[in-house]
Amino acid sequence: MKAAILTVGTEILFGQIVNTNTVFLSRELNNLGIDVMYHYTVGDNSARLKELIVDIQKDCDLIITTGGLGPTQDDLTKETVTDVMEDKLVYHEEIWDEIVGYFNASGKRKITENNKKQAYFPSRATVLPNERGTAPGFALKNGEKIVICLPGPPGEMTDMYEKQVVKYIKDLSEGSLYYRLIRLYGLGESDLETLLMDLIDGQTDPTLATYAKEGECYLRIASKRDTEKEAEAAVDEMLEKVRAIIGPYIYSCDNEELSQVVGRLLIEKNLTISCAESCTGGLFAKTLTDIPGISEVFDRGLVTYSNAAKREELGVRSETLGKYGAVSPETAEEMAKGLHEVTGSDICIAVTGIAGPGGGTEEKPVGLVYIATYSGNGTTVKKCNFMGNRDKIRNRAMLAMFHEIHKILGDT
Amino acid sequence: MKAAILTVGTEILFGQIVNTNTVFLSRELNNLGIDVMYHYTVGDNSARLKELIVDIQKDCDLIITTGGLGPTQDDLTKETVTDVMEDKLVYHEEIWDEIVGYFNASGKRKITENNKKQAYFPSRATVLPNERGTAPGFALKNGEKIVICLPGPPGEMTDMYEKQVVKYIKDLSEGSLYYRLIRLYGLGESDLETLLMDLIDGQTDPTLATYAKEGECYLRIASKRDTEKEAEAAVDEMLEKVRAIIGPYIYSCDNEELSQVVGRLLIEKNLTISCAESCTGGLFAKTLTDIPGISEVFDRGLVTYSNAAKREELGVRSETLGKYGAVSPETAEEMAKGLHEVTGSDICIAVTGIAGPGGGTEEKPVGLVYIATYSGNGTTVKKCNFMGNRDKIRNRAMLAMFHEIHKILGDT
Repeated sequence: MKAAILTVGTEILFGQIVNTNTVFLSRELNNLGIDVMYHYTVGDNSARLKELIVDIQKDCDLIITTGGLGPTQDDLTKETVTDVMEDKLVYHEEIWDEIVGYFNASGKRKITENNKKQAYFPSRATVLPNERGTAPGFALKNGEKIVICLPGPPGEMTDMYEKQVVKYIKDLSEGSLYYRLIRLYGLGESDLETLLMDLIDGQTDPTLATYAKEGECYLRIASKRDTEKEAEAAVDEMLEKVRAIIGPYIYSCDNEELSQVVGRLLIEKNLTISCAESCTGGLFAKTLTDIPGISEVFDRGLVTYSNAAKREELGVRSETLGKYGAVSPETAEEMAKGLHEVTGSDICIAVTGIAGPGGGTEEKPVGLVYIATYSGNGTTVKKCNFMGNRDKIRNRAMLAMFHEIHKILGDT
Repeated sequence: MKAAILTVGTEILFGQIVNTNTVFLSRELNNLGIDVMYHYTVGDNSARLKELIVDIQKDCDLIITTGGLGPTQDDLTKETVTDVMEDKLVYHEEIWDEIVGYFNASGKRKITENNKKQAYFPSRATVLPNERGTAPGFALKNGEKIVICLPGPPGEMTDMYEKQVVKYIKDLSEGSLYYRLIRLYGLGESDLETLLMDLIDGQTDPTLATYAKEGECYLRIASKRDTEKEAEAAVDEMLEKVRAIIGPYIYSCDNEELSQVVGRLLIEKNLTISCAESCTGGLFAKTLTDIPGISEVFDRGLVTYSNAAKREELGVRSETLGKYGAVSPETAEEMAKGLHEVTGSDICIAVTGIAGPGGGTEEKPVGLVYIATYSGNGTTVKKCNFMGNRDKIRNRAMLAMFHEIHKILGDT
């Protein structure tokens, strides 16, 4: 099935906000096996919106719109879609009751006469309740053409998509699609493709597709069978074949972030952790503390930017700093060991490196990073050479730190 | 002038990357007084691209494309645009020489016969050199219709836009546009509008427009006059009137980030800084160390997540923690004072709060944050109540910390 995503909202055309809805929907629709052919964004203007929908329907059977479902005058997606799809709006008492209930529960805002507009829907529509806000969405068919209208706020849109749209779309097609997103660290996309070549080439179902993301890569295994159960079994069987080849690189089979996996494992295993950062400047601690509940195991983070801080906070010796420099395996190791002395945490990780743009030399170029990790098994030091600008180098160093901890957690 | 932004690239339709180019171009074109009517994204398919351009040109005089200018077979923007605009491609020896020069200078990749494609341009085109990569862009006129084609990689695109496209567009229109983006902290958008109402209402030139962004807001002052000098004078005159009303809230008249302003001032004034973070978990240190060269003045950051860390690293007294709790003005103050004892830094800032989602009580709700700042003038403690989820609360706390330091730097 060919699809287009249509964003309605003048604020997007002003460049005031990033259109994350389109990214989310593109990825999700592709995961369902639907070809996204176009993205469009149009302002709050009924005539232009109508013209666009007619145009798009020459090429695509499915249009998903976001935005323009609110109660105000300039929210006109519903009226326009109803018109193009040759239907008319009908008042739904039960939807009005739900909207009143939502207002009463939130207790913040007063319901106005305007809100009544939100209880009108096309007569043939499948109404999609909104658990996160007042504007329900809907799906409307006209012959082979389908338009699904979702609200603009990302939290409401993704919730409605996951809870209702996925099922609606799956019911449209014969057969059942199931997929898993496998996440990997330490393997480039082309290496991944080469290693899995035999599996990728021979297969029509399940299919394997690779994706690259900043410092990491993904593998998507998808199957379409008569029932979801059969599709799931086919995907899991393929996953075992994949695991036999690239098992050590896999850190999640359910699309979790590496930092989330590590945070979850630390909490589950009740292992305390502290970190000492130089070049990443707090990015590792910040990312770890993005995880709610991490305070159970995270003791402290020291951003020892200056040499004085490395000496005073971590007991790195002046001779070490003088002889080998702040960016050296020796300094990294003393940082991790010193951190353990100070904190007694089960896992202590330290990083020192040159994030650039300045500070690089021929011997120690920008991107050189040492990561030292202390655990019950002793201290290991890893040398890395990262490419890219300051941002990328810091990000990759942070990811590498999580990877080092993940390796330890696999052992315990 | 009405414009559309057209993104070419299948990877965008897959939802693999966020389309930041469109956000950048929308904002910038609006700043130049151009109405952006549509955004479109299309895959690497010449027939569909051609059809779209013809369609768009019924409504818009200006199309800006990004992507599809590379050397490979599926890069077809240039060929398609040349065709639609009734021109033909011509080989440019001097551009080929530049591409060869770029390859030799980068020393990384080998030039291939494919790259020769990048030296062909429409005969009537204004070629836009690419200082950051190998694919030059171009602007092409056909009657009233203009298409400007830019490369896809954001770094190359924005560089080319700022250095060449702005001038090209300004030359198209009569009169000269000049604008400044004023950034403010501590004032909501509606309060800003109310305060400036008299200035906004009476004015046709310069115009004033307000924008809101996560925890901050912007004011854009723009003028269109016969010469750039006149426009600049009009904008600066208006800026003085604005400053008389909301001066204390302004931290930049040149669209700088608050953290950048603070980092620059610290370096200029040669004032050393250290931080102690609890709820922000390293985010302040991370943001400060995003600034190249900050190592001159940033001594260290301590992420004292546990009570033990607060006691051991900063000397916060057990009695204080026991009597008032970790989230209290008393603890914040002892954190800042203790940090100064340990580091001797000129400015020491400490934060403690409840980022949520858990950990809130009726007395101390999620979003309660205390920021203590030590400087030569003593220690001040600020109490904040932030709304929003964990991410937003942490971000706003971080911004508030920079604001506190900014106030001190204004004094010294």
